[in-house]
Amino acid sequence: MTDTTASPPAPKAVVLLSGGLDSATVLALARAEGYETFALSFRYGQRHGCELEAAGRVARSLGAARHVIADIDLRVFGGSALTADIAVPKGRTPGAMGEAIPITYVPARNMIFLSFAVAWAEALGSSDVFIGVNALDYSGYPDCRPEFIEAFTRTVALGTKAGVEGTTVLTIHTPLIHLMKAEIIREGTTLGVDYGLTFSCYDPTPEGRPCGECDSCLLRAKGFQEAGLPDPAR
Amino acid sequence: MTDTTASPPAPKAVVLLSGGLDSATVLALARAEGYETFALSFRYGQRHGCELEAAGRVARSLGAARHVIADIDLRVFGGSALTADIAVPKGRTPGAMGEAIPITYVPARNMIFLSFAVAWAEALGSSDVFIGVNALDYSGYPDCRPEFIEAFTRTVALGTKAGVEGTTVLTIHTPLIHLMKAEIIREGTTLGVDYGLTFSCYDPTPEGRPCGECDSCLLRAKGFQEAGLPDPAR
Repeated sequence: MTDTTASPPAPKAVVLLSGGLDSATVLALARAEGYETFALSFRYGQRHGCELEAAGRVARSLGAARHVIADIDLRVFGGSALTADIAVPKGRTPGAMGEAIPITYVPARNMIFLSFAVAWAEALGSSDVFIGVNALDYSGYPDCRPEFIEAFTRTVALGTKAGVEGTTVLTIHTPLIHLMKAEIIREGTTLGVDYGLTFSCYDPTPEGRPCGECDSCLLRAKGFQEAGLPDPAR
Repeated sequence: MTDTTASPPAPKAVVLLSGGLDSATVLALARAEGYETFALSFRYGQRHGCELEAAGRVARSLGAARHVIADIDLRVFGGSALTADIAVPKGRTPGAMGEAIPITYVPARNMIFLSFAVAWAEALGSSDVFIGVNALDYSGYPDCRPEFIEAFTRTVALGTKAGVEGTTVLTIHTPLIHLMKAEIIREGTTLGVDYGLTFSCYDPTPEGRPCGECDSCLLRAKGFQEAGLPDPAR
């Protein structure tokens, strides 16, 4: 006897989760779309562990089926204020951030992160990867732009077994790419994201408090202000 | 007083080095083209360490300026006979290997390796990455094909600071892509590669000797035979 009322298993999705507010919103969106979520974070030589602790809290609170932290030491290559001993810029104007690529840019970071996400998706038999890149209220990183995501998707189709055999046409979902920070926050709030669990600062104090002056802190503050909501992490 | 006879500094190149004969040949080719070479290997959860020991020997013997082994644990994702507890296929016919993608395929491996190489190249200010992929005498991996390399190059141009700012147009060099294994061996022999230092087996004995029956061993044996040369590693 078969129970024909049983629902089919939820499709699986790999969600890149940094611990910041964007990726937390993406995880909530993927869940709201009916995916069983597999959250992926990286210990890539960040100067602090606050982000990864936040990622763990967020994954639990939003019901991820699994949360994997992959160890990849990008410090061996140097070249970024986020992984090397270079000062994080402070007090920049959000409107002007996108005009030049800042020193907090980590060479090829999203390409590396997405490649790992694709590897996991392929091993899971999943055809969906979610990433919280954003091309509007952003810091000027080239690997957050739609052109990059499109080229990457084409590369995946040509370079993976699933893509070549046509068993799985992998989609990179970028639900935030054309949203303002305030819209992201409103969307996540509707979906029940607890932004008090997230962490966005590039250069926190030794006690793990946000600096309030780096690009990431300033964009977050502007977002909550424009959304007309208080930041529960403050 | 300026010494106008001094030669300019050699351009830098990142060379992906597995420890096998293809990548050793590529390292020798990059050096012969005048590059200062930066060799990059990965500890990605291989079932044995023979390859990485070989990579170290090869990097030293061919004068690499640096050799970095990046730790990236692909075992967390599973899905390949090279990283999981799945039997490596034996005794396949080289001519038929390219017809299907084998279980030794590691999901998205070359995409991950190339992303790291690009990150290092960007940090070094280098515009050249070398990889020993080969589309003829190969095992059927989709990420060894020219179409994949072209799409990846386009992704790099769109997703990296160097590509966007136009300061560095990164080239992925694939000097072996259209060569037969025997041609690769003859070329490397001319350039002084000591193939006795290289290691090609997917599934060595506990004593670290090649199995002689996996795709990699069979392709290697066929290559030396067709080149009319003895394999110094035997």
